[in-house]
Amino acid sequence: MVITLTTDFGYRDAFAGVMKGVIAGINPHVQVIDLTHGIPPQDVMAGALSLRHSASYFPRGTIHVTVVDPGVGSERRAILIESSGSYFIGPDNGVVSLALNEGKPDHIVQLTNSHYHLKPTGTTFHGRDIFAPAAAHLSLGVPVTAFGARLSSFVKLGTPGVAREQSRLTGEIIYIDGYGNLFTNITEHDLTGLPSGKLNVAVGSTTLQGLAPSYDSVQAKGLAAVLNSWGMLEIAAYKGDARQECNAKIGDKIIVTVAS
Amino acid sequence: MVITLTTDFGYRDAFAGVMKGVIAGINPHVQVIDLTHGIPPQDVMAGALSLRHSASYFPRGTIHVTVVDPGVGSERRAILIESSGSYFIGPDNGVVSLALNEGKPDHIVQLTNSHYHLKPTGTTFHGRDIFAPAAAHLSLGVPVTAFGARLSSFVKLGTPGVAREQSRLTGEIIYIDGYGNLFTNITEHDLTGLPSGKLNVAVGSTTLQGLAPSYDSVQAKGLAAVLNSWGMLEIAAYKGDARQECNAKIGDKIIVTVAS
Amino acid sequence: MVITLTTDFGYRDAFAGVMKGVIAGINPHVQVIDLTHGIPPQDVMAGALSLRHSASYFPRGTIHVTVVDPGVGSERRAILIESSGSYFIGPDNGVVSLALNEGKPDHIVQLTNSHYHLKPTGTTFHGRDIFAPAAAHLSLGVPVTAFGARLSSFVKLGTPGVAREQSRLTGEIIYIDGYGNLFTNITEHDLTGLPSGKLNVAVGSTTLQGLAPSYDSVQAKGLAAVLNSWGMLEIAAYKGDARQECNAKIGDKIIVTVAS
Repeated sequence: MVITLTTDFGYRDAFAGVMKGVIAGINPHVQVIDLTHGIPPQDVMAGALSLRHSASYFPRGTIHVTVVDPGVGSERRAILIESSGSYFIGPDNGVVSLALNEGKPDHIVQLTNSHYHLKPTGTTFHGRDIFAPAAAHLSLGVPVTAFGARLSSFVKLGTPGVAREQSRLTGEIIYIDGYGNLFTNITEHDLTGLPSGKLNVAVGSTTLQGLAPSYDSVQAKGLAAVLNSWGMLEIAAYKGDARQECNAKIGDKIIVTVAS
Repeated sequence: MVITLTTDFGYRDAFAGVMKGVIAGINPHVQVIDLTHGIPPQDVMAGALSLRHSASYFPRGTIHVTVVDPGVGSERRAILIESSGSYFIGPDNGVVSLALNEGKPDHIVQLTNSHYHLKPTGTTFHGRDIFAPAAAHLSLGVPVTAFGARLSSFVKLGTPGVAREQSRLTGEIIYIDGYGNLFTNITEHDLTGLPSGKLNVAVGSTTLQGLAPSYDSVQAKGLAAVLNSWGMLEIAAYKGDARQECNAKIGDKIIVTVAS
Repeated sequence: MVITLTTDFGYRDAFAGVMKGVIAGINPHVQVIDLTHGIPPQDVMAGALSLRHSASYFPRGTIHVTVVDPGVGSERRAILIESSGSYFIGPDNGVVSLALNEGKPDHIVQLTNSHYHLKPTGTTFHGRDIFAPAAAHLSLGVPVTAFGARLSSFVKLGTPGVAREQSRLTGEIIYIDGYGNLFTNITEHDLTGLPSGKLNVAVGSTTLQGLAPSYDSVQAKGLAAVLNSWGMLEIAAYKGDARQECNAKIGDKIIVTVAS
């Protein structure tokens, strides 16, 4: 049994370690794996995307705990969702929503049963007081429905769509990784839907021709357009930083055109 | 059985990983949990505070190894302390002292028995050569007293006190977390000792009125005063960085007053 | 059984976590230890040195996975090497080469057998798709030779040599750690080969006299020359940053002289 942790706690403080202590106190045998604690502070979308493109690589039955939670202590709900045999725990602010398969989850529960909360229960660190205990008890076999009231819905994040014309796609940068690679929202499926011809990928004032088979097949400014590990179109700089090369940021437009 | 690691090694180098290799070679079955390796370099107080507010969340019997050790290789002693059924290993520079319960520990031992040191034993990395092996052997059941000479005392860090007048508390910032939240030395108990009335919390030129129930109940500059996960008064900026907003640093005064 | 991970993925993204998910799906019982994910991006030498000075602290039979891989998806090979009872997996760009004992490894295999690749297999993240699955299957007992074609050689990194005259050594800075300590390529063995007399260590315009027994035995600018945990001559600043004090960088010359 595996519990994953994804947070914006960073690596300076002991907060993620404390969550593991709480888990070890409840279930010493569960394996805890850090997805990352480096989500930019309060960046719910970055947390949601990181979880979305990671969760499917874990065994069925994994319990994913995601804490990017600027609203901790407020009216926002704490939730547990069971979907396709795996479990998602976190604040109900959309951070778990992108990782769920389409269709209605098997269970949505609000973590209201204080029997499974750490005592005393504070208002500033639900990762420690509510989410970690829920994950640990769940890993011991406590049924999902024991954790609280059933809900009929949860907060879903919207991701920006890709606009398609005849031979032109307009997408945008949705994530920038630690290398400075620019992840777009344009999928391999979007690209295969284009008419055949020479592909051009434009970001800002730079245009790249064709998809590169690997990062070292570079063009202008050492840049390459590749299909990345998320199955998305990505602009990368070989041994460099595409964000800096392109002076790019999240939300910037990416335009793909086909010249016949 | 759990061993925790708290260091100022950072995340660039393999030093913490090497400690885990040494432990795995001695006891492959013990669980090793990182509290954090992000303690600011040589900041013994930050290490001590991080351990203090984390250790109690781990199961009884946990072995806490803390390596913030500017004096490694000098005359400073290497120690193992047993207190209330848990264990604390590190340099005798105060870094473990704040995590211990009041009263005399059950055992204080200097790690002088070279049988439990890695060979060859260097002078620059006792985390690898002395502390990790001690923790691993201890987790196998080696008795505390086997590791070396008994000591009657150890170095204790002092933490700054809170000055109290009639309806006024003067404390200070003792820790700043990765979000930029300002942790003070004023406890919930200090606040409940004040006469009733409207609470004002002043940091530098900013004054906040009342305790916020959660981070999103903000006032001037997006700031809120909350009781944080350490049980302390904290100044935080909702989706922001209170250190920057207040231009604050460790040691800055925090003044709490009550207006009747 | 232990698998170690050493990468330049950093701590912002979930890439290292995903590798652990893949491993847990194949062998839930293997222990995975992070050496570090903080290797500077694409710095093959830093990865190779970090592995070299860490691997020997792990139990025999450990599987070391190292992913500093700017050529991922190109013609560069993916390899598995068995040497002295331990295993080294990564791109064939030299990153594993410094950790191997001298002499010919027991086996060198190219990871060509797609049966052990994750499907679909991408071109940008072989850590996830090829290296992690190989390590996990290997930990289950799959024989080395099952993973692909035997190779007769692999890419070896060269490390700069130390020039020796009568009473003078000229080496250089090969690594700088997270504290800013300057690691040189001059070994304890190099120093013991010098004639007896007073030792001077020069870096840039600074000269230090003698080896310090510990970091706190400081001289000019708070600097000390010590024999470090890699068995190398190191220039360090007590509670400071030697890189900044000396304005030093990798490749800078270090000159050791003996005055009789």
